[in-house]
Amino acid sequence: MARAHWGCCPWLVLLCACAWGHPKPADLGGQDVRNCSTNPPYLPVTVVNTTVSLTALRQQMQTQNLSAYIIPDTDAHMNEYIGQHDERRAWITGFTGSAGTAVVTMKKAAVWTDSRYWTQAERQMDCNWELHKEVGTTPIVTWLLTEIPAGGCVGFDPFLLSIDTWESYNLALQGSNRQLVSITTNLVDLVWGSERPPVPNQPIYALQEAFTGSTWQEKVSGVRSQMQKHQKAPTAVLLSALEETAWLFNLRASDIPYNPFFYSYTLLTDSSIRLFANKSRFSSETLSYLNSSCTGPMCVQIEDYSQVRDSIQAYALGDVRIWIGTSYTMYGIYEVIPKEKLVTDTYSPVMMTKAVKNSKEQALLKASHVRDAVAVIRYLVWLEKNVPKGTVDEFSGAELVDKFRGEEQFSSGPSFETISASGLNAALAHYSPTKELNRKLSSDEMYLLDSGGQYWDGTTDITRTVHWGTPSAFQKEAYTRVLIGNIDLSRLIFPAATSGRMVEAFARRALWDAGLNYGHGTGHGIGNFLCVHEWPVGFQSNNIAMAKGMFTSIEPGYYKDGEFGIRLEDVALVVEAKTKYPGSYLTFEVVSFVPYDRNLIDVSLLSPEHLQYLNRYYQTIREKVGPELQRRQLLEEFKWLQQHTEPLAARAPDTASWASVLVVSTLAILGWSV
Amino acid sequence: MARAHWGCCPWLVLLCACAWGHPKPADLGGQDVRNCSTNPPYLPVTVVNTTVSLTALRQQMQTQNLSAYIIPDTDAHMNEYIGQHDERRAWITGFTGSAGTAVVTMKKAAVWTDSRYWTQAERQMDCNWELHKEVGTTPIVTWLLTEIPAGGCVGFDPFLLSIDTWESYNLALQGSNRQLVSITTNLVDLVWGSERPPVPNQPIYALQEAFTGSTWQEKVSGVRSQMQKHQKAPTAVLLSALEETAWLFNLRASDIPYNPFFYSYTLLTDSSIRLFANKSRFSSETLSYLNSSCTGPMCVQIEDYSQVRDSIQAYALGDVRIWIGTSYTMYGIYEVIPKEKLVTDTYSPVMMTKAVKNSKEQALLKASHVRDAVAVIRYLVWLEKNVPKGTVDEFSGAELVDKFRGEEQFSSGPSFETISASGLNAALAHYSPTKELNRKLSSDEMYLLDSGGQYWDGTTDITRTVHWGTPSAFQKEAYTRVLIGNIDLSRLIFPAATSGRMVEAFARRALWDAGLNYGHGTGHGIGNFLCVHEWPVGFQSNNIAMAKGMFTSIEPGYYKDGEFGIRLEDVALVVEAKTKYPGSYLTFEVVSFVPYDRNLIDVSLLSPEHLQYLNRYYQTIREKVGPELQRRQLLEEFKWLQQHTEPLAARAPDTASWASVLVVSTLAILGWSV
Repeated sequence: MARAHWGCCPWLVLLCACAWGHPKPADLGGQDVRNCSTNPPYLPVTVVNTTVSLTALRQQMQTQNLSAYIIPDTDAHMNEYIGQHDERRAWITGFTGSAGTAVVTMKKAAVWTDSRYWTQAERQMDCNWELHKEVGTTPIVTWLLTEIPAGGCVGFDPFLLSIDTWESYNLALQGSNRQLVSITTNLVDLVWGSERPPVPNQPIYALQEAFTGSTWQEKVSGVRSQMQKHQKAPTAVLLSALEETAWLFNLRASDIPYNPFFYSYTLLTDSSIRLFANKSRFSSETLSYLNSSCTGPMCVQIEDYSQVRDSIQAYALGDVRIWIGTSYTMYGIYEVIPKEKLVTDTYSPVMMTKAVKNSKEQALLKASHVRDAVAVIRYLVWLEKNVPKGTVDEFSGAELVDKFRGEEQFSSGPSFETISASGLNAALAHYSPTKELNRKLSSDEMYLLDSGGQYWDGTTDITRTVHWGTPSAFQKEAYTRVLIGNIDLSRLIFPAATSGRMVEAFARRALWDAGLNYGHGTGHGIGNFLCVHEWPVGFQSNNIAMAKGMFTSIEPGYYKDGEFGIRLEDVALVVEAKTKYPGSYLTFEVVSFVPYDRNLIDVSLLSPEHLQYLNRYYQTIREKVGPELQRRQLLEEFKWLQQHTEPLAARAPDTASWASVLVVSTLAILGWSV
Repeated sequence: MARAHWGCCPWLVLLCACAWGHPKPADLGGQDVRNCSTNPPYLPVTVVNTTVSLTALRQQMQTQNLSAYIIPDTDAHMNEYIGQHDERRAWITGFTGSAGTAVVTMKKAAVWTDSRYWTQAERQMDCNWELHKEVGTTPIVTWLLTEIPAGGCVGFDPFLLSIDTWESYNLALQGSNRQLVSITTNLVDLVWGSERPPVPNQPIYALQEAFTGSTWQEKVSGVRSQMQKHQKAPTAVLLSALEETAWLFNLRASDIPYNPFFYSYTLLTDSSIRLFANKSRFSSETLSYLNSSCTGPMCVQIEDYSQVRDSIQAYALGDVRIWIGTSYTMYGIYEVIPKEKLVTDTYSPVMMTKAVKNSKEQALLKASHVRDAVAVIRYLVWLEKNVPKGTVDEFSGAELVDKFRGEEQFSSGPSFETISASGLNAALAHYSPTKELNRKLSSDEMYLLDSGGQYWDGTTDITRTVHWGTPSAFQKEAYTRVLIGNIDLSRLIFPAATSGRMVEAFARRALWDAGLNYGHGTGHGIGNFLCVHEWPVGFQSNNIAMAKGMFTSIEPGYYKDGEFGIRLEDVALVVEAKTKYPGSYLTFEVVSFVPYDRNLIDVSLLSPEHLQYLNRYYQTIREKVGPELQRRQLLEEFKWLQQHTEPLAARAPDTASWASVLVVSTLAILGWSV
């Protein structure tokens, strides 16, 4: 799980917020927040003065004859993490939370954000800003209708509204005598001026062939073949998501935190390949790798990133049909393509193809998980020795596990901000420690680590929860029920093309049985050195059906407010299942290789099938990770691994079912008195 | 499960067809079908000559200046079963299958139907008609575009197209220079003339208070209170589904096969109650029960059924907002209400309220299930004696169980056409025997009975599958896995407001595990002397979330083409679950009280939890049905019940898990050699 979002792209933020339930705001009651009702208002030192920038923004609005201007929290590609130069909402409001929309009128300014961020917003915003606690377009439009006069215009940057969001605003404003006005020059950027951080400009590089599943030429041919087979015969595919272009060309960079992407679009037509990016970022080797000096159908023409809208508009003048993935294409592109020339699907063929890994990609992803397990095991061994000394805190722990990952071969940094949470902090939905604010790790508390790495061969994501002292019976029960959920879903056999939504309850049943549950989703896709939350694979209602070759995380949890949090997350490959009777069935093969915490497992709650599964999994861990630890002379870690993967045995006295019944019967037959 | 449809209303037919997968056509290869390619064409005797009626229809079309006319298979209320006078498609084409749309142009006539009906259509239609094997509006519109000239008009009866279906035609025709024309006078009816069967005219009667959960006045007040609380403040609710009006006023009749309804609409406003029906069908007692002679807000004004469209149109001229359930309101009503005066939800507040039974309604439904169990048990006991004699066939069996139900108190006929299927016939998706075509019951084959009754206090639906001889190991395994599915879902504990879709896989897991599955849905709501397939409760994606007080069937199955079919269906009440830790959790309480077939259960596949559940269920059956059998002096049936509800015991030798492990350990401890 990631800190702020539940998918690779912010179009999923709401889903995430919903799935977690409405998380209670962290108890920051004692914190220093603004008070705008006193005269003069009370403003804590954390507040940003926005008077000057708001005045300048209103001047721009006046020039454009706008009554209001919408400032979303997105970028032009619906990225999960956005670059500093795209943090327009944060800059104009002072409020830096990852979710929230601002709207400015000539007289007022307001922010809408969810409960996770209310306190933070009250600490960061000055009294120019109203805080609204409902989210979605409806409350924003309701407010707009009372704040701006009939006939008023509501401006927005069309590259910051998805098609769906635009439609939602448009529908809500219909018949209200206020109209939406698309303005391609961002007004906040005009005000921000030279203070605005520069757009990243690091080199864009090609992955070595050893780390790619297919050449870019093979991928281009594959997509073109899908275009030909499509009944609406699209003449081009437009790729708006950065991961699409990165995947298609096997190119990477580091424009986005945690995601190895670069700002780009691709227009792949039946006769040309047009890559929109900053040409100066390509080395001559990379340009030659892309055949960028020729003009045939297998040559990549590089055009400037800023030209994409005009180029699409010009292309759309011809007898063409442009295929787009509507979930993540922005209105700024959509509005320049005539409707009859659009071929729409929720996800582009690139997104759909990328979701199913070929055998080489599977092998690469698995290999990265073996090395990732080494880093996590090194950290767990280190914690076991150092936590009792009282010298480890959440933040230094997170730094250490990041460092261990960084020492692994092919490492390219963490795949998201490490969640290192001790005790009650692990029950917070989106917690990450900071250098200033963190908690000490202790043998008296549970500790949750949710972290992952980017490696040239794959992206990883794993969560383990541990206790070094004596956990309570309830903690053990909750942990074991979470573990059962993980096992029940991991070993489930289900028909091919079943949607994840239909089976995710298997990860919850053992918790439900006791009146427990968790408020977030059960898993998400993952990429080969791409997104750690890679759509459209997963267990939510808008995920696509499961197919052989997909990878997904499986991550049930349990959270006790103010006390502790448990999550057990593994990445699993969807594989064919061998069933007694022939049929097309699937199951999961777990590729995360770190044992669970024996100290937290109540074996009496496990069925023989659970134990059998667990012991087989432990045997696999030994086989995969053991030799790697030995090869690297990590002998202490090897010993630890052997200890923690010892087969678990049934505990007869605790079982209340078959076991006791039959022992009793057996003894009875033998004439024993019981 | 019902024969033709999967819900109370045909808007669900497609769902049903999808859920079952595309059922193979019954093997009727040897049957006598038409051959239009010979000269003269070969026509079997079963064919209907439609030349005269088609000519007359085309004259009507010419009068209206139509290039094409659509003849759907629905009625004006989206009823699951339709009256004979509504069987327009069957009359004009000769093809009597329950699903299929006809379209007539000036030159051609065509029918679109699914694979279940292809052979039947070829036996019943003459060569005036083309048969098209794809279903949905898209293939129809594709055909229309080639068959009718640009500028052509496509006529339809707006009372026979749902809002969704109209939108789908409208969207597909957009930009094609062909337009849809709504014609309120049905052109087929004009041609049908005096031959058309009369509209039912039996008395409409009020249910005795003993059989109603609330008075109609209480229900009216409840709906008005929901109108007041609604944020869009509707001034009226329009009820289009016949079950809505029947439920609201506690009125019943017998216009529709298997459903105790009468043709009607209700417009319930904040100050009036307008019931559209045939006034002559109300006795003076019923009129006085409805306060129909006064004009206050709690008086029911009865207006003629045929006036509904004009009355709604007139009402919509005022400052009003009309709340409708869009899933089952027809375009003929929808088109006369200005969009800004519509308040739309998928289901009306009546549909939503009706879905949750109050405690009296729960008690009534349960009581009907006890008597229903008596009828089914009488039949099973009779079969056990008579099947070995070789004198029972599927049709006479169905007649007998219908007769036994008819002898129960408060009986009002079957709730759907009894599915009585022996051997391979039970594997057919929509099989019911006829007097002419049926199969003998035998001790060598499995027999599936899916049937239900209408009683004044409740509607029932139960499926049992039996074998009187020696079932094969595979039959026992499949039966037991279906039973495990039924148990696993029935005993599931899940959070309040979980959607059925999220949990229905628990009914499939035991089958999936072995590579088996079933192609239909897992359950549907059921009414109090209303629909046997009552929406919107159930396990499909368009069902609403589960809530305490709802009733649903639970009915996994397994079907082996050409060999046998298994389905085990019970009706269950959604009740609060007691969990170890406090929370809002639900589970099911099964209210069908007929034991499963011991002869088909492989106990070795059952876990201790399954056995415990089953034995507790059997104990409940004894407690509920036993006294009723004794009271009625049905002593043979009582004895049968006792035998068939004997507690089942674990069979140690077959268990491969805890059991054997522990017995072995125990014996080992005792020094036995094993």
